[in-house]
Amino acid sequence: MSLLVIGTLAYDTIETIHTRRTEVLGGSAMYFSVAAGRFVPVRLVGVVGRDFRPQDLEMLKRGGIDASGVEQADGRTFRWSGRYESDWNTRHTLETQLNVFEHFDPKVPVAMRDSQWVFLANAAPKVQMKALDQVLRPRFTVVDTMNLWIDTARADLLALLRRVDAVVLNDEEARMLTGERNLIKAAGAVLGMGPRYVILKKGEHGAFLLGNDVHFSLPAYPVEDVVDPTGAGDSFAGGFMGYVAETGNVSPSTLRRAMLYGTVTASWCVQGFSVEALSNRTRAEIDERFDELRAICSVG
Amino acid sequence: MSLLVIGTLAYDTIETIHTRRTEVLGGSAMYFSVAAGRFVPVRLVGVVGRDFRPQDLEMLKRGGIDASGVEQADGRTFRWSGRYESDWNTRHTLETQLNVFEHFDPKVPVAMRDSQWVFLANAAPKVQMKALDQVLRPRFTVVDTMNLWIDTARADLLALLRRVDAVVLNDEEARMLTGERNLIKAAGAVLGMGPRYVILKKGEHGAFLLGNDVHFSLPAYPVEDVVDPTGAGDSFAGGFMGYVAETGNVSPSTLRRAMLYGTVTASWCVQGFSVEALSNRTRAEIDERFDELRAICSVG
Repeated sequence: MSLLVIGTLAYDTIETIHTRRTEVLGGSAMYFSVAAGRFVPVRLVGVVGRDFRPQDLEMLKRGGIDASGVEQADGRTFRWSGRYESDWNTRHTLETQLNVFEHFDPKVPVAMRDSQWVFLANAAPKVQMKALDQVLRPRFTVVDTMNLWIDTARADLLALLRRVDAVVLNDEEARMLTGERNLIKAAGAVLGMGPRYVILKKGEHGAFLLGNDVHFSLPAYPVEDVVDPTGAGDSFAGGFMGYVAETGNVSPSTLRRAMLYGTVTASWCVQGFSVEALSNRTRAEIDERFDELRAICSVG
Repeated sequence: MSLLVIGTLAYDTIETIHTRRTEVLGGSAMYFSVAAGRFVPVRLVGVVGRDFRPQDLEMLKRGGIDASGVEQADGRTFRWSGRYESDWNTRHTLETQLNVFEHFDPKVPVAMRDSQWVFLANAAPKVQMKALDQVLRPRFTVVDTMNLWIDTARADLLALLRRVDAVVLNDEEARMLTGERNLIKAAGAVLGMGPRYVILKKGEHGAFLLGNDVHFSLPAYPVEDVVDPTGAGDSFAGGFMGYVAETGNVSPSTLRRAMLYGTVTASWCVQGFSVEALSNRTRAEIDERFDELRAICSVG
């Protein structure tokens, strides 16, 4: 049950064609935690600045998230700002201020080192490795990354991939990492780099899971009114890992169902700004949408 | 069981990044017939020129296709030539010669007018309507169209949509027809135009079926080595309708399975030039891939 996540907590400024919101709660580990917290208690490791709002820490605690691994450092919290085009697929990063995250040195509290389920949210591979090194006997470790690290820290990333059970990539990252345009071939090539499973996310076109014992593909949940796509990928990972940790096994059928739960938490995520829509969801609402998605996928 | 298709038979010249093939058998009704012929005998109505090769008619007959509704007119057979970019998604039409198809006046032979299952392959909506008028009591009619007709013959197309049971559209066509960018909203708007079902094809991203009693979404079959994408949409329609006609009902579960069969026939289509890979498939091979796709889709 013990699910640990290491990653960013941030304040985001987000522009869509409809509206603009400033200083909303964000960050990869934040989205992950809120999604995974729908399933199991979550242990969160990260860093925030002196400006981090007390009510945001309160919100985490109410959501079943143990934030005792969140260090408060001198300086400002990580800031990100971006703008989405009307098709939601095109995102322009307007500004990234690493702030306290620039010198983030992950410290997994002693009480969290027995975590069985570990998610290394997007960060420099060296930082992710340093965090992983502090976990005693992880049972299932999943790593996320981004184009920047594939490009600038490839050797570190490849070393990390040999130590994890699964990697989460979007289509662009998978192509960049492997040089393969065809996504199935790309996923196969990633398996050759070490992980037992690859989760390949295609945004509005769904996702697939490939491993030696499983190949499962599913559509995105059809959200008619997207509000803010920020955090969809981390919310997917949170729903996926939350369900796996809750179930306590990584059988192919658990992983398939976890892909549906990840799709569901990602769909709630994009229906509100920040974690607003997702953090207000009950488990019953999540299960209801799971059943709906399952019906949409069901060959019958 | 009686499945009728009206549409084009053509000779295509196709360029891919790997190779160039001239004067290969093509056309919407041709691809449809070869795919549907894997399931049930097919009745084909169309027009060819004096240059149509006898061995191509022979191939049709061997594939269980009744070509007695194919008129041979003075002039040359429809010609199309196109070039694909390396990503397969970008297609440039290099030339279209309508030839004998320019004045195509569909004549459904008397012996074919009792057809229960009807596919109106892409043609001017007026021509499609004229063909449909000759069928006595169609039980399930599906229509395909293209951006040209949505743009230039919208009123005719809307009149036709009020008379058919289902329409097959790709993502671009659905958006163009409805003005909705979101594909689920677009499909819902199409239902408001008359058909009971919309089949929305997203190429490598799969397809979905929407109706009042069904919503089913599935991924494309993961083809690793595409040879020629020409005809994938018509082969999808052929597998879909062939299975529906074979089953003899349009229950939601039949339609869901038909979406898988359409995906399978489309996947075989793109693995060869023209109808070459598809026409050489046994039903057992099609069922084997159906089972494989079903496993990929199965939540378990």
